[in-house]
Amino acid sequence: MNRMVTDSPRELRLELMERVETRLSGFLAAEREKWAAVDHRGPTPVDAVAALVDVGGKRLRPAFCISGFLASGGDQDDPTIVDCAAAVEFVHTGALIHDDVLDAADLRRGHPTVHNRHSLEHAAKGWRGEPRRYGEGVAILAGDLATVYAARCAAALPPQAARVWGELLTEVQIGQYLDMAVAAESVIDPELSRWIAICKSGRYSIHRPLLLGAALAGRADLEPAFEAYGEALGEAFQLRDDLIDAFGSTAAAGKPVGLDLVQHKMTLLLALAARQDQRVRDLVAKPEWDVTALRERLLEIGIATRLERRIDRLVAHARGAIASAQLEPGWRDELTEMAMTVAYRDR
Amino acid sequence: MNRMVTDSPRELRLELMERVETRLSGFLAAEREKWAAVDHRGPTPVDAVAALVDVGGKRLRPAFCISGFLASGGDQDDPTIVDCAAAVEFVHTGALIHDDVLDAADLRRGHPTVHNRHSLEHAAKGWRGEPRRYGEGVAILAGDLATVYAARCAAALPPQAARVWGELLTEVQIGQYLDMAVAAESVIDPELSRWIAICKSGRYSIHRPLLLGAALAGRADLEPAFEAYGEALGEAFQLRDDLIDAFGSTAAAGKPVGLDLVQHKMTLLLALAARQDQRVRDLVAKPEWDVTALRERLLEIGIATRLERRIDRLVAHARGAIASAQLEPGWRDELTEMAMTVAYRDR
Repeated sequence: MNRMVTDSPRELRLELMERVETRLSGFLAAEREKWAAVDHRGPTPVDAVAALVDVGGKRLRPAFCISGFLASGGDQDDPTIVDCAAAVEFVHTGALIHDDVLDAADLRRGHPTVHNRHSLEHAAKGWRGEPRRYGEGVAILAGDLATVYAARCAAALPPQAARVWGELLTEVQIGQYLDMAVAAESVIDPELSRWIAICKSGRYSIHRPLLLGAALAGRADLEPAFEAYGEALGEAFQLRDDLIDAFGSTAAAGKPVGLDLVQHKMTLLLALAARQDQRVRDLVAKPEWDVTALRERLLEIGIATRLERRIDRLVAHARGAIASAQLEPGWRDELTEMAMTVAYRDR
Repeated sequence: MNRMVTDSPRELRLELMERVETRLSGFLAAEREKWAAVDHRGPTPVDAVAALVDVGGKRLRPAFCISGFLASGGDQDDPTIVDCAAAVEFVHTGALIHDDVLDAADLRRGHPTVHNRHSLEHAAKGWRGEPRRYGEGVAILAGDLATVYAARCAAALPPQAARVWGELLTEVQIGQYLDMAVAAESVIDPELSRWIAICKSGRYSIHRPLLLGAALAGRADLEPAFEAYGEALGEAFQLRDDLIDAFGSTAAAGKPVGLDLVQHKMTLLLALAARQDQRVRDLVAKPEWDVTALRERLLEIGIATRLERRIDRLVAHARGAIASAQLEPGWRDELTEMAMTVAYRDR
């Protein structure tokens, strides 16, 4: 390929991100064509996956996967990194589709969720059976299909990267399960809730994709630095998510605000608040939460300010973790920039 | 390893099957231990997967995967074949767990299904939220976890085998979706139903595992013979399944008999009956099926006898397909025996 050697880290990343988009859309177009040849209904689950991939989101996971790879000196013309980044996006898509069923969420990124859309179609057309079961059935299978696409994209990973990939896949499921169980059983255990939050978001969104990129580039030595950076930034990312849900606007979050409290979710925000305040502990110990009282108490104890300070410390920690890592030129600054964007995305 | 060179094909297969059992149970034990260290709830989805793996079923897919490998001259001490056979069993486990949600099935292999067991536990313990959503949530995540375990076991597949593996994974999901859609929309299309039945059962139970084994052994040349054998035997296998559901005993099927008709499933049996009989077509065209009338009509047209003859022809076709294939000594007879067992498993 003809390329200026002076491309900045960000330009290199954006170039590879473009190739990931092409890979994702090409993969989905081929699948759609293949199954349309069997029956006109064949592409429906493919379309459900594609619709979520298309509306996009932040492509946070591919961005960190590619950054880990390039920062570690990976060859930008190696096609495996593009496949690998596409794989992490497909995993995320599958997790979102299933997560929406678990949460009974009606909207995702401003559009009807897969199960919601297909339940409505079933009811409107008067098909056989129960609309809810049908819609959730489509969502189960579409989520499975996205995971299959992830597996196909990740088929050529070398052993060290395959190990990280396996850990990423497993953690997501265990984290999701514990999150659901803790909510159902009304468990008040801030440490467990913190573990779940970090497992569910930080590790699989930042830490594991970074390590995956580094492993692909053959740089296992960067594991400690990327782990420290990813764990800290992952927690900051989750705290920002919780703050937006609790206090932010629906438009910024792309989903209804305050759903976490309504659904009795023991978020990281709430776990940290419960750890320091007896009244919050009392409120969340009740069988039914008084959402108004809880939100008021969270405001009273100044949780937003406290968590902003915690985010600042986490970002400083993340920056410190890569301060002396042997990265390719310019990548320390680029990863610092990315940390700021992730931690302060509502600014 | 010390091994008599005179081991029969069946003995070799059973030896490898033993190693698959050890692999499956060792993998699950390690996972249980890992997640128990996080929280006592951590192993719950692992246990859900393990419970289904333990009660076993026929291990049909690992058996055909191993047979394809050994018949193609694969090295019996290659650990990849054991991983690969464990992977197909995990895929099957995940598919069963999700399939039971889609079917709202209460029992599987004589035990409560994953979603049923966890819905009941939720209700009994008075946990927060809706028991159904919780139970189905556990089943969604446990099924996902089984698929993740499959992906981890299949991580080291060489390119040709990885391609077959990807096809297997994809077909299962598309087949499941079309099966559900056709039932919901009351589609009467025998050819489509035949495609679905073959895609859902034959291909992923027999044909693809065989090809996977052959690909692992580096014998892509066997693809046409194994494809013909697998497609024919897969259809015979599915017809037997349908016959047992329609006319067999609950004990033999391990699930309630006649559920297909009750659930308006356009099975292969029904598709073939509809193709040849106007009265069956009329009965299945009604919004609500008269199950008694349908079963009576199926008996009147002698569907069981007709399908037994069809199964005989399919078995003969499967045997013919491998008659001149270049297989290792003794494997033609062994694959013939396996075909008989699969096609006539109620005898």
